[in-house]
Formats: sequence, C-alpha cells, structure tokens
Amino acid sequence: MSKGLPKRSEDYSLWYNELVKKADLAENSPVRGCMIIKPYGFSIWEKMQAELDRMFKETGHSNAYFPLFIPKSYLSKEADHVEGFAKECAVVTHYRLKNDEDGKGVVVDPEAKLEEELIVRPTSETVIWHSYKNWIQSYRDLPLLINQWANVVRWEMRTRLFLRTAEFLWQEGHTAHATKQEAIEEAEQMMHVYGTFAEEFMALPVIKGLKTESERFAGAVETYCIEALMQDGKALQAGTSHFLGQNFAKAFDVQFTNREGKLEHVWGTSWGVSTRLMGALIMAHSDDQGLVLPPKLAPIQVVIVPIYRGVEQLDEIKAQLEPIINSLRKEGVTVKLDDRDTFKPGFKFAEWELKGVPIRLAMGPKDMENHTIEITRRDTGEKSLFNLNENLNAEIKEVLEEMQSSIYQKALTFRNDNIRQADDFESFKSILEAHGGFVSAHWDGTAATEEKIKQETKATIRCIPLNNLKEEGNCVYSGKPSQQRVLFAKAY
Amino acid sequence: MSKGLPKRSEDYSLWYNELVKKADLAENSPVRGCMIIKPYGFSIWEKMQAELDRMFKETGHSNAYFPLFIPKSYLSKEADHVEGFAKECAVVTHYRLKNDEDGKGVVVDPEAKLEEELIVRPTSETVIWHSYKNWIQSYRDLPLLINQWANVVRWEMRTRLFLRTAEFLWQEGHTAHATKQEAIEEAEQMMHVYGTFAEEFMALPVIKGLKTESERFAGAVETYCIEALMQDGKALQAGTSHFLGQNFAKAFDVQFTNREGKLEHVWGTSWGVSTRLMGALIMAHSDDQGLVLPPKLAPIQVVIVPIYRGVEQLDEIKAQLEPIINSLRKEGVTVKLDDRDTFKPGFKFAEWELKGVPIRLAMGPKDMENHTIEITRRDTGEKSLFNLNENLNAEIKEVLEEMQSSIYQKALTFRNDNIRQADDFESFKSILEAHGGFVSAHWDGTAATEEKIKQETKATIRCIPLNNLKEEGNCVYSGKPSQQRVLFAKAY
Repeated sequence: MSKGLPKRSEDYSLWYNELVKKADLAENSPVRGCMIIKPYGFSIWEKMQAELDRMFKETGHSNAYFPLFIPKSYLSKEADHVEGFAKECAVVTHYRLKNDEDGKGVVVDPEAKLEEELIVRPTSETVIWHSYKNWIQSYRDLPLLINQWANVVRWEMRTRLFLRTAEFLWQEGHTAHATKQEAIEEAEQMMHVYGTFAEEFMALPVIKGLKTESERFAGAVETYCIEALMQDGKALQAGTSHFLGQNFAKAFDVQFTNREGKLEHVWGTSWGVSTRLMGALIMAHSDDQGLVLPPKLAPIQVVIVPIYRGVEQLDEIKAQLEPIINSLRKEGVTVKLDDRDTFKPGFKFAEWELKGVPIRLAMGPKDMENHTIEITRRDTGEKSLFNLNENLNAEIKEVLEEMQSSIYQKALTFRNDNIRQADDFESFKSILEAHGGFVSAHWDGTAATEEKIKQETKATIRCIPLNNLKEEGNCVYSGKPSQQRVLFAKAY
Repeated sequence: MSKGLPKRSEDYSLWYNELVKKADLAENSPVRGCMIIKPYGFSIWEKMQAELDRMFKETGHSNAYFPLFIPKSYLSKEADHVEGFAKECAVVTHYRLKNDEDGKGVVVDPEAKLEEELIVRPTSETVIWHSYKNWIQSYRDLPLLINQWANVVRWEMRTRLFLRTAEFLWQEGHTAHATKQEAIEEAEQMMHVYGTFAEEFMALPVIKGLKTESERFAGAVETYCIEALMQDGKALQAGTSHFLGQNFAKAFDVQFTNREGKLEHVWGTSWGVSTRLMGALIMAHSDDQGLVLPPKLAPIQVVIVPIYRGVEQLDEIKAQLEPIINSLRKEGVTVKLDDRDTFKPGFKFAEWELKGVPIRLAMGPKDMENHTIEITRRDTGEKSLFNLNENLNAEIKEVLEEMQSSIYQKALTFRNDNIRQADDFESFKSILEAHGGFVSAHWDGTAATEEKIKQETKATIRCIPLNNLKEEGNCVYSGKPSQQRVLFAKAY
C-alpha cells in the first residue's frame, strides 16, 4: 500500500492528522468538532480503559453513572466553576420534533420548549455533588470513592482528532472525604496512578506537578497534573487530579455528622483522563512510517504474514504456522494471521507498519525449508532470522518487553534532553524558538507575569514540579525574587 | 435494618420501585426521566456488559464510537425511521451560555444558535450508515461488524427506573453484509446470542420470535426479539435484532463493488440491549425480602458476617476466616467480609438479603469452638451448618451452581405455567384478567385486528415464536382463518 504519510520534519501537524486517519484510528464526523473512533483506534482505547479501570478498582473506587444532562442553574452554584465551564456548552432547549408543513422533513416543535434548559455535561461535579448531598449523612458514609466512564461535550472552536474535540470520552472520578488531609492524599494518589499508567503502559514519561492558579480547574483549590512532551517539542497535559477543598460541598450543602456528632462539610476531589491520551500516545512514539505502539497497549502484538504462491503453498505454510500461533496465544500474546488472498505481502507489511503492530513475523517457502521465521521489530525496523528449533515464545516475549522499555527510554531521553534552563528572557525566548520543549525558569508567582509571558511567547506554565528544588533566583520576566523554577512550554 | 419493602402481592409496581432504591441500584436524577445508576447497580451492569462484550467479540464484532449528536436532517433520510424516532428527542439548538445581565446566573446566548439543530441520538443507524458510505467500497470491506456501547436519549413521558428512562445505556450493533442471506443470519445469530446471555447469565428464560409489522423497529424489514415474563404476569421485551434489508444502504447510498465488479447496495442489521435488562433481572427473580441475583451476575457472591462481642473476639474470628476467604478468592469466588463495627449482625443480614448476595456465611464463637460455619442461601433461605474439616470451596461452588440453575428453573416453570391457549375472545380476555401471562391465540395477520385487541385488552402481540407449530385455526378476534398462533401479553 502507498501510505502517503507526510514526514514529521516537514509538517508535524499534518503528519499527525493523516496518521490518525490512515491508521484507521479516528475520523471527523459530520457534526462539527465531533469524532468517530474507528474500531482499530477504539481497541487501543479499550486497552487503556481496562488498565485504568483495574487501577481505580485496586485503589478502592467503584463505577457509577450520572445523567448526561445538567440543569442550567446547577452550573451557577459554584462561583468559579461557572466561569470555567458555563460558556461553550451544548444546550438542549426542546424535547420534540414534528413533521415539517411541507412534508419534507422535521422541524423543532416550538410547543415542546423546556422550562429550564439542559446543558450536555462538560464535566459532572455539579450533578454529582447534588446527589452526594443525599448519599452522605454520617462519617460512616465516607469516604465515597466513585468513578464514571462517560462522554462529555465542550463546544471547542478549533478541534483536532483526539486532542481537542467537542465530544470526547473520559473517566471522571469524584470522591468525598471526612478530612482535608485524606482528600489531598486522594488527589495525590490519583495523580500517581495516572503517572504510573502513562509510564508503564503508554511508555510515556511524565512530569508530575501542580498547576498555577490561572491554569487550575475551575472550582479546585489545587490541581495536580501529569505533563508529557511530544516529538515536536510541545507539551501535552495528560491528566489532572483536583483537590476541591470544601468548595462543592458548600455549593451543594453536603455535610456529614462526624464521630463526635458534629456537622461538617465534606472534602472533595475530582480527577480525569480522556481520549486525549490517544493523541499523546500517537504523537509521542510514532514515526514517518506510521504508528509505533508500546506492546502493552497494542491491540495486535504480533502479525504473521505468509509469503506464498498459490493455495497449496499457503496451506503448507499455514499448517506450519498453526502450532506457533496457538502456542503464542496460550502465553497471552495477541496474534493475527494475515492470510488475506486479496493483498500482496508488501502491501500487508506497509499496512501493519502503519498500524504500529510491534512485531511482524514472515514465513515463506525458504523459511519452510530452513525451519526459520523472519522477525521484524516495528520501533527499530530491525530484522532477524529465527531458528524455529529454539524457543520462539520466549524470544517474542523478550522482544515485546524490550520494546516496551526501549520505547519508554527513547521518549525519556528526548524529554530530558528537552528541559532547558533559562535565566533571562532573551534566552527563554530563543530556547523556545530554537527547540521548543520545557523551559525551566524562575517566575515571580504572579498571574500577571504568567499572562505576559504567554502573550509574548505562547508558552504557559505547565506545572510547578513536585519535589521541586528550592532555589533562590529572579523571575525571568520581571526580575523579581523567586524561590523555585517552574516549567514553561508551548502546549497542546 | 428495617427494609420497609412493600409486598409483591400488595403492590408489585411500588415493590419494584422501592426495591431499586433500597437495594442501592438506581435513583431518579434531578433531570426529569433520567436516572443515576448507583455503584451497586452499576457493578451488576458491568458484569452484564463484560459477558455480552465477550460474546460479541467471539462472534467477530469490534467496538467503535460514533457521535452523540445527529444532524436533524439525517433523521429524515429513511422514511420509516423518521416516523419512529424523530418525535420525542432532545434537541440541541445553541452552543453557548453567557452571564445573565442581573449577574446571578447564566442564560443561553441567542447569538450562539446552531444553523442546523442537533438531535441527541435516540439510536445511531443514521449517523453510522452515513459513515459506512465512506468505509465500504468493495466486497473486501465486508462484512463490517461493529458494536458500540453508548448512552441514548428518548424523551419518554412516563418513566420508570431501568425499564423506561429518557437517557439509558445500551449497546447497538450495526453490521453491513454483501448478501441478504448473510445479513439475515447475522440478525438471527445476535438474537441467539441475546437468548443465550439471558438464559445462562440472567437465569431468565426467553421466547425467541419475530415482531409483527406494527411492533417492528422503524426502518427494519424484520425484527427478531427475545421476550421474557415477569412475576406480575407482564411480558418484557429483553432484546431486539433487526434485519434492515437494504433500507439504510439505499437511504445513505452505501454501495459496494462485488466480486464480479458490479455495484450493489449492501444489506444491514442492527441489534441492541440496554439497561432495561437490569429491570428484567430485578423483576424476574426478586422476592419480598429483596433482590435475588443469579450467582453469575452477582457483584458479591459470598458475604461473610462475623458474630462477636468485643474487638478481641472479632480478631480471633477474622484470623480463622482469613484462609477461608483467600482460598475462595483463589477459586474465583467474589467474597466480601463485612467486619463493620458500626452495625449489628441482624442489620447486616437484612442488608445483604436486600442486596441479593447469593450466599451468606456467618461465624460466631460457637462455630469457632465447633469448627463450623453457617451457610445461608438467598433464594430459598435454607440454612445449614458446615463442618470446616470438609471442603468448603467445593461446597460453595456447588451451591452457587445449583442456585444459578434453580433460579432459572423456577422462572422457567413460572413462565411455562403462564402460557395459556385461548380459542375465543371471551376466554382470551378472562385469561388476561385472571392470570396475565402469555396468551397463545390465532390471529388473522392484520394490523387492524392487532390494534383492536390492544385497545380492548391492552395486550399486544409480543412475538410470533420461531419454529412455531403450523396449525389451522380462526382468529380469536375476527374469526378469519389463521395458520399459526402468536403470543399476546400485556407488556412493560
């Protein structure tokens, strides 16, 4: 197959868009800003979901489901929240259609106007805290540890597949606690869960940190985040976990009787990751040949392409492959035999390369004779002939493990090479211009300076890294004193 | 705990509503007609999802995700479909809110009116077939076997938790095929998958059949269904699978080049089950004490309640229970130890009974001495003392299996006892009045008769059973000749 994929070095943005489409991950839908996640893309998302869901359950959370619609008035109940979320929303105003008078279609029935408009949830804090009021009476009802997998809608003007879409899929955790300390620990725990998931499964190194006040979630006291770096030097926020203080508990009057019999407001957290992680996964590792998937998230880990002339030869090769496939599957390796007779091997090689299958095995008549099989690694392109008298299962598993860690190491090296210190605004700007990446610089702690830097360079403070080194210095922009460096970057 | 659950015999409908709430399955949301699925209820739904998803994948289907919103004009493209679905819909007309001038809240921004209104999907045929046009060019692209798990909205006026809600969760399969025969086989296969799931996992006997034209899915050529009977004698449609013919392919111009190089319209199916299955599960098996769950779908299969005075005794019992719990878990049994010190054993017994946990184990000081444990079965209430020198794991697994099949048998006997033949309209009506259940009767095959029977008795034709006996007779209403009996019932 002809891939027709642009080079990253020529047009990174076009490369990304084309890759998403050509690798059958997703496409734009007829509804502006909404995407269709195609089966191959969705199967990667399902693997992510399964691992995250397991991790949430292991940390004591249960899933539930809250309504898609939020009464408009709910959004106004938490003062900061409404500022952040009650803007670009999909608004349901009517509940019925009727036949058009010209008989050609349907029109909105003006008589079916809702008394109060409904908002398609952009996030569910308001509707969930409204329920928590009834669910929480006593310290015995706490902690309440709930997650939901859902679709949400934020009417974005500029959209990109996976990275920013009007509708997206995500999970949102919403927890309630008896003490401030416990809620902070929960918010931190979930940031660490996200970090572990990103590094161990997505092979994506992340920096854990705190958001500045201007980048904080609307309604949160503190926002923890994990930040990753893409190959074009732009940062991507991969997940956030919010300590909500008592903000939502007060807005929705959620109180509990403590062990001493006194009424107190509960403490809250919320945390989420979305299909945006798909964008991060694609952009962090893939190359000019197509997707590169870490084996732990690859829907197909090994593809086998038989090389043959005529049905008879194909049957012989398949007979030889059958025990190999069964044995690999028994070991938990996902294997696909591509025996389509409608495509040639070269086409298949290119297709599976584009789709990022970690290992390709090829067997032709010569291999049959020599009792060998060709192993090709997707990340390095490295080829080797393997003697089938040796233990193929062990070899495949070793290569998969090796790939998982080497993809991570490559991304880590790239990320570490792209954190640069700047001590004056000129070098700050020239680093951003020449390399992008993270710029570690002193900042005077004011939103005004943050805003000016953003206006002049498009870089924002991605986070104040946790366990940051305390270091006296002067703000790279204002020259005012500062106690620590923060990480700036242009971001998705 | 005091359950305060009404008796089924007194008010079945109230019993159901109260049970759903008291067993922590679901509750009404502030948005009319929408429900909140609580963690315990959701964990049952998750078990259903997991089994169904496995069955869909085993039959070759992949998951994908299509947008929540459908452009209004799409609904009108398939003539029957628009009649069925473009009525009670949630309509999005605006995409932005702004601060109210009085500064107290938010209002819809009149300037942010959409050019074309968007419908929140009531089902996704239209938006999916619109995509299929681009996905299908050649016979090599077929069959296309896709499923999605999603939320949908139908603005129902009278809603009941799980059974009929404005928003509900479901899966919808949408497949495209090269031949009519293959599409029919797919539609039938999925009906059988649903049937197997209902019977083997939900312990719910179902009758497989065809819908009459008036009960058919809007846009389908043929609708296959599985119909179940609830304890109050009303039927419940538990799943449907539609053979769509070429209706959607023609409406959305989906053609493929066949092996001979000719263009043809593809053949389609769609099929779905929803959170309505939760309603069926609850209503089919539960009793006046609360939920009865088939072990295969119970989130907790075994609950263990220690009976003790003081922390010291609790510690001793827990030490004895620990190896028992570990050993059961190793065998794949879901076990919960209820060691809450804030509730008494009687309260706990009642709570787990209400929540339908299949097996309750209790251990007190006397059991410690005698090396015994008390086993109580939820479905029969049967209690027995088990000697711990014998194999507890084997016993528990046997009881769970026995319960799964005995719950099914009980429902099957009830269902079979409640299929009655009527040969004239008087006995038809008196059976419905006295017993409810299914009435097997001859029907003249006309929609007019079907409608009149519905008006006079509220009973509808639930299905024309598959493999129906051919039998000459006369329509129970019109007296006209008929070749087979069909099943009537009042239904949810």
